[in-house]
This record gives sequence, structure tokens and C-alpha cells, in this order.
Amino acid sequence: MDHLHRLHELFRRFPGIGPRQAKRFVFFLLAAPAAYRKELADEIAKLESRVTTCTSCYRFFDRRSTETVCSICSDRSRSTESLMIVAKDVDLEAVEKSRVYTGRYFVLGDTIPLFEGKHTTSHARSKELLTAVERAAKNGLREIILAFSLNAEGEHTKESIEALLSPITQTSSISVYTLGRGLSTGTELEYSDSETIKNALLSKKKDA
Amino acid sequence: MDHLHRLHELFRRFPGIGPRQAKRFVFFLLAAPAAYRKELADEIAKLESRVTTCTSCYRFFDRRSTETVCSICSDRSRSTESLMIVAKDVDLEAVEKSRVYTGRYFVLGDTIPLFEGKHTTSHARSKELLTAVERAAKNGLREIILAFSLNAEGEHTKESIEALLSPITQTSSISVYTLGRGLSTGTELEYSDSETIKNALLSKKKDA
Amino acid sequence: MDHLHRLHELFRRFPGIGPRQAKRFVFFLLAAPAAYRKELADEIAKLESRVTTCTSCYRFFDRRSTETVCSICSDRSRSTESLMIVAKDVDLEAVEKSRVYTGRYFVLGDTIPLFEGKHTTSHARSKELLTAVERAAKNGLREIILAFSLNAEGEHTKESIEALLSPITQTSSISVYTLGRGLSTGTELEYSDSETIKNALLSKKKDA
Amino acid sequence: MDHLHRLHELFRRFPGIGPRQAKRFVFFLLAAPAAYRKELADEIAKLESRVTTCTSCYRFFDRRSTETVCSICSDRSRSTESLMIVAKDVDLEAVEKSRVYTGRYFVLGDTIPLFEGKHTTSHARSKELLTAVERAAKNGLREIILAFSLNAEGEHTKESIEALLSPITQTSSISVYTLGRGLSTGTELEYSDSETIKNALLSKKKDA
Repeated sequence: MDHLHRLHELFRRFPGIGPRQAKRFVFFLLAAPAAYRKELADEIAKLESRVTTCTSCYRFFDRRSTETVCSICSDRSRSTESLMIVAKDVDLEAVEKSRVYTGRYFVLGDTIPLFEGKHTTSHARSKELLTAVERAAKNGLREIILAFSLNAEGEHTKESIEALLSPITQTSSISVYTLGRGLSTGTELEYSDSETIKNALLSKKKDA
Repeated sequence: MDHLHRLHELFRRFPGIGPRQAKRFVFFLLAAPAAYRKELADEIAKLESRVTTCTSCYRFFDRRSTETVCSICSDRSRSTESLMIVAKDVDLEAVEKSRVYTGRYFVLGDTIPLFEGKHTTSHARSKELLTAVERAAKNGLREIILAFSLNAEGEHTKESIEALLSPITQTSSISVYTLGRGLSTGTELEYSDSETIKNALLSKKKDA
Repeated sequence: MDHLHRLHELFRRFPGIGPRQAKRFVFFLLAAPAAYRKELADEIAKLESRVTTCTSCYRFFDRRSTETVCSICSDRSRSTESLMIVAKDVDLEAVEKSRVYTGRYFVLGDTIPLFEGKHTTSHARSKELLTAVERAAKNGLREIILAFSLNAEGEHTKESIEALLSPITQTSSISVYTLGRGLSTGTELEYSDSETIKNALLSKKKDA
Repeated sequence: MDHLHRLHELFRRFPGIGPRQAKRFVFFLLAAPAAYRKELADEIAKLESRVTTCTSCYRFFDRRSTETVCSICSDRSRSTESLMIVAKDVDLEAVEKSRVYTGRYFVLGDTIPLFEGKHTTSHARSKELLTAVERAAKNGLREIILAFSLNAEGEHTKESIEALLSPITQTSSISVYTLGRGLSTGTELEYSDSETIKNALLSKKKDA
């Protein structure tokens, strides 16, 4: 196979990219300045050596010198009383962007597949999570926030993590929270499902 | 203008219907059984005499004999302690479908337009709402739930109604609530706006 | 069932209309002026008596006094040498809008379903078509244009009509044409299927 | 700026890629096998040295040893009597896929922008095109096919190239063709614009 086709094939594996867009990528690169191609190739090639996972929260971060923990985990102004467990790095980023949470994180790496049992510890980072929670418990941890998407996979992940952590949380004073439910930005009552309306009523809020 | 064009024009005023679909409607009716056309024309023609607005909550309901209030308002098993204010009939129907609310309703008829001031009482059913709340207050009303969509118009309507009702609510023991906010069904954390995440964190819920 | 639900059900049968939009139609009518509802009901009720099919081309037209043929068929300035066969009234309207065809039409009423054989004459208006072509042949008919959409149903209809008419066309000097194929407005070469490119090359046109 | 953000920025320049998908690409690469990342980086880095433009038709092709012309231009079975001018490599590929054209190509590299005059020769490859046509004319060229998309840019490019080539084509026996127009695959008559219907009628085709 020639190089144009090989590059086309490599781009086809990108998430959400079909054959046509993969081809557009190839021709875009052919027409792009050499300096751009060079920098792109270099960043991809050195990703492994430049980016690493934080040994504390497991999110990806730029490795500088000999650091082993990310900027959030090394930020002493952030509370160690609160630990938010998220599925993916992008979820953590969305929460950070809202600038309302000041505690620590743990990144599972993925949601827990629906076909896996709740009590499995075989899933990636289950052990790491237990270790992290045990360590945090000694450092004043008071609450764990399970922050998962409100869909089937997110719900299953929430239940799996609750089961996984219950030996610790039930014998300690650590509270486990889930994100609040109700109307989200843009929700139109007319088109809302009964579950959302039910949650919005159960969590109705008194005017100040 | 001939009748085909006239009918086409009448269908074009239907909500969300462009010229092409209006034309499809015309040809659909031309091909439909005569009995179907007859029944449709009859239901439309007699809508006014058959359907009326409830004199209590103002929603549309099928007029039978001499009733003046709808099935919800005449249902004695429903609590008179709670009054939910919604913008439109379809919002009321969505709430009823969730089978979690057992109080009464008031239908404003529409949202309050953004360009109108908050303290206007000129808007349709503002007076009727005040009358309804005053009457309900004498019948044991304890809470008002403002149930509007979480968008600009819904927010403006909520604020307008709060201002309208404040003379009553501030001098009585009636509490005013708004629907809870947070993740709604299908919300993915990764794609959530900061406002939704903030609300989800502020309303986080402790595990049982 | 009450009238609101009955009207909702009737609207649900409209082409392309789901339960939500059907409900919006009902509430739209409830809020509409009484005069609008009255006129709409009247136009629907009297559609049958006011609109009829042309006894010559079979398209729908407004019946005025005692006319039995439509405005196109009674227009003496239109050529009787050319007959265009279309599947539906909306196709005829699209052709008329282009203001380039000056002959006569025949409306089949529908495409011929794929599962029907090519030689069937059981389909609606097959007999009427044969009669119309035989009559036109005596009035100087020189060409028949088969004007169907370029999709599976349109292709099948074209082949069925060719077979149906072949006894007449093969023993006369009447030519049968199909619409030209190639690039249509908006066609991008990059995204064109091989069939379209092949047709565009086979029908390539010399510059003036 | 750190490397994760830099890579994110580089991907955002990809055609059709917004900030969210660029981020998904970054995390996709972080999770991908090291061998995949290495190969992708390598293919991008060496694209310039491995892929070149054909000195005859100007399309991109894999450079092997010391070849200077692509596989199509060096294929002696392909006719030198016909030259198809296309805007981009992807257009040439679409035509090749249809397996109906057996002549040669010239790739302009892009469409000619609408705001440029028709008689400009400043646009990329205008000179190269003139040289190629003059050379082809000495090798028995008999027809030029202008193969551009049927949209505003394609039409403008066609007119610009016609004007550019007219000094040659008007003093020689070389014919200039444009792609045929009419119904393309999937065209529905009901939804066709007047221009397409007009073209389909002008290019109507007699049944065999």
C-alpha cells in the first residue's frame, strides 16, 4: 500500500471520522505548510514522553522535569476533604470550567461497561481508586462526589463504584454524594421525560 | 384564488409547517377517505363549542353538559395546599404524565415576553392568577411551584410571576418554589455547560 | 374518547406528523381565531365537491361550473405533440414551475410499487393511460416523456410504463424519452456516486 | 502552552474539526497504542519526501524511486486525445472510481475564487495548464472536458478556464465539453429546482 492510502487508513481510526473526512485530512496535510506538518508529527511522536498520568488522580498532564502529580493534586489551596470521581479527563475539564468545585479528583479512565457485574474489581483503576480513597481517608476526606453522566452507562458506573466503596464508606464518616438532578440548561418542560420532571419536583427549591 | 391554494395557505399557518409540507397535507386530504375528511372538518368546526377553558385553572378541557371546571380541579383527592403555575397546557400534560404531583395547577396561557417589564399586570391571565391565588390562600394554600422551562423566556416568566405574586406571598405563610436544577435525563458531563454543572453540584444529593 | 384526543388522533395521520406536532396543531387551533377554524373546516369539508380530477390528465383541479378538464388541458396554446407522464401532482407542479415545458401531461397518481410486475395493468390509471395515449396518438402525438424521480421506485415505474406502452409506441412513430441525467444543481463532484459521474460524462455537452 | 493544548490547537486546524472533536482526537491518541502513534507521526513527517505532485497532471502521488509522473500519466493505454480538467485530487478520484473515463487529467489544485476576474492567469497552475494544453495539442488532443461541481464556485471556475483556454481552443480543432446536466442519483422531481428540471428536459434522452 502506498503512503497516501496508509495515512488515510490511520486517520480512519480517529473517533467519528469516516472515509471521506479521513481523505480530506490527507489532502489538508499535503497542502499544509511543512512547518505545521513537522510540528504535528513531533507532538504526536513525543506525546508519550511528554504527557503522563498523575500518580494521585490519574488524569493526563504535561510532564515537566520530575513531577509525578498534576497541577490540581499539587495545589495546596484545594480541599482534601472532598474527592470527586469522574469517568474521563474531559468530564474533569468540564467541571473545572464551571469554577465551582475546589476539592480533588479521581479519574476512572472510562465508564464501567453495562455487562460487567457491580462488584467486579477487575476494571481498570478499581484498585487504584480503593488505594486513593484509603489514603484520602487518612488525610481528612469527608465527602465523595460521584459525578457521572445521567445515562445508562453513567448510572451503572455510579452503582458499581458505590458497591466498590461501600466497605470503606459504611465504616467511616465519609458521605457519598451524587450530582443533583432536575432541569438542565435549555430543558423545556413540554418535551421533558417523566424522570426529569420527577427529579425537578423532588428537588424543588424554595425562593430566597 | 382557488380552493386548493386556499387550503394550502391555511395549512401554512400551522406551527412548524412550510410550503412543501402544507402542499403534502392538501394532497393527503385529497387522497384520504371522505369519512376522514368529514370527521376532521367536523372536529375543527365544533372545537369552540366542545372545548372550553376551566374557570379555575384555565386549561382547555372537553365541555360535557354544564361543567365549568376541569377533571383535575374537580378532583377532591388532589391537594389544595399546592398550586403549580405553568406556561402552557402541554407543560401541564408533561407534569401529569410523570404522576408525581398531586396538587392543583394554574395555566398562564403563555410565557411572558422578554421585552415586557416584570411588574406588568397587563399580560393575559395576570389578573386571573392573582384572583386564583387569593382564593386558594383562603382554601389552605401553602406552596406555589413555579414550573417553567429553563431558558430565557422561562426565566423571565418566573421572575415576572414572582414579582406579581410578592405582595401576597410576602405577607402570608405561602412558600414559593422553583423546580430543582441539575443533570436531566441524558445529560453528558463532558458536554454540559458550566451553569448545569454548578447547579448539579449545589444540589448534590447524599446517598441513602 | 374526548374531542381533544380525537382531533389529536386525526392529525397524527397527517404525513410526517408525530404525536408532539399533532398536539401542537390542536393547541394552535384552540388559540386560533374562530374565523380561521371555520374557514379551514369548510375548505376541508367541501374539498370533494370543489376539487376534482381532470378527465384528460387526471390531475386535481378546482371545479368551476361544469368544466371537466383542467386549465392546462384546455389551454389551446399548449402543444398536443408532447405528453409528459408523471407520478404525482406535485411532480407536475415542479415541472410547470420551471416554465420550459409547453406540452400536455398525464398524472399516474402514484409510482408503481417495486413488488408489482412490469406488465401489470391492474395499477390505478394504467387503463386510463392507455386510453389517453391512444386518443393523443390520433391528435398528432409525437413524443412521450417519462418524467420520474431518479430512485428505485421511479426507475421501476419508468420500466413498467415503457412495457405498458410498448405495443403502441413500437407500432407508431411516437418517440419515448426519459429525462436527461447528469449533474444536478448543487452536485459536488467529490461526493458524486459513480452512476451520476458516468451519466454526466455520457451526456457531456459541447461548448457553443 | 503545554503539549496537550498545543496538540489540541494543531488538530483544531483540521478541516471540519471543532474544539470538542479536536480534544477527542488528543485523548484518542493518548489511549492509542504507542506503535500507532509512532506510525502516524512518521507518515505525517515524511509526507513531503514520499508524496509529490505529478509533473504532468499535478495530482499528488507516491514518489517511488525517481518517477516524476503519476501512474495515470505514465499509463500508455490511456488516450491522449482527451484531457479532463478538475479542481481537486478528490474530484479526479471520484471520476476514476466511476471507471468510465479513459483519457488524461489536469488538476488545477483548487477552484478559482468568485472574486477573481475571469481573465486572470495569476491563479495557481493557470500557466501550468496552458503549457499542458499546448503540449497535449501537439500529441493529438481532440477534446477538453471541464469537470467542475455544479455550484457557484464550480461555474465560475468553468467560465474562467474557458476564457483562459479560448486563444488555444478557438484556433484549433480541439472541442471543449462540460459535464452533462440533468437528474442525478436520488433526485426527486417534486423537490427539484427549476434549473435541474430545465436541464433534464433539454437533455432528454430517446429510448433505445
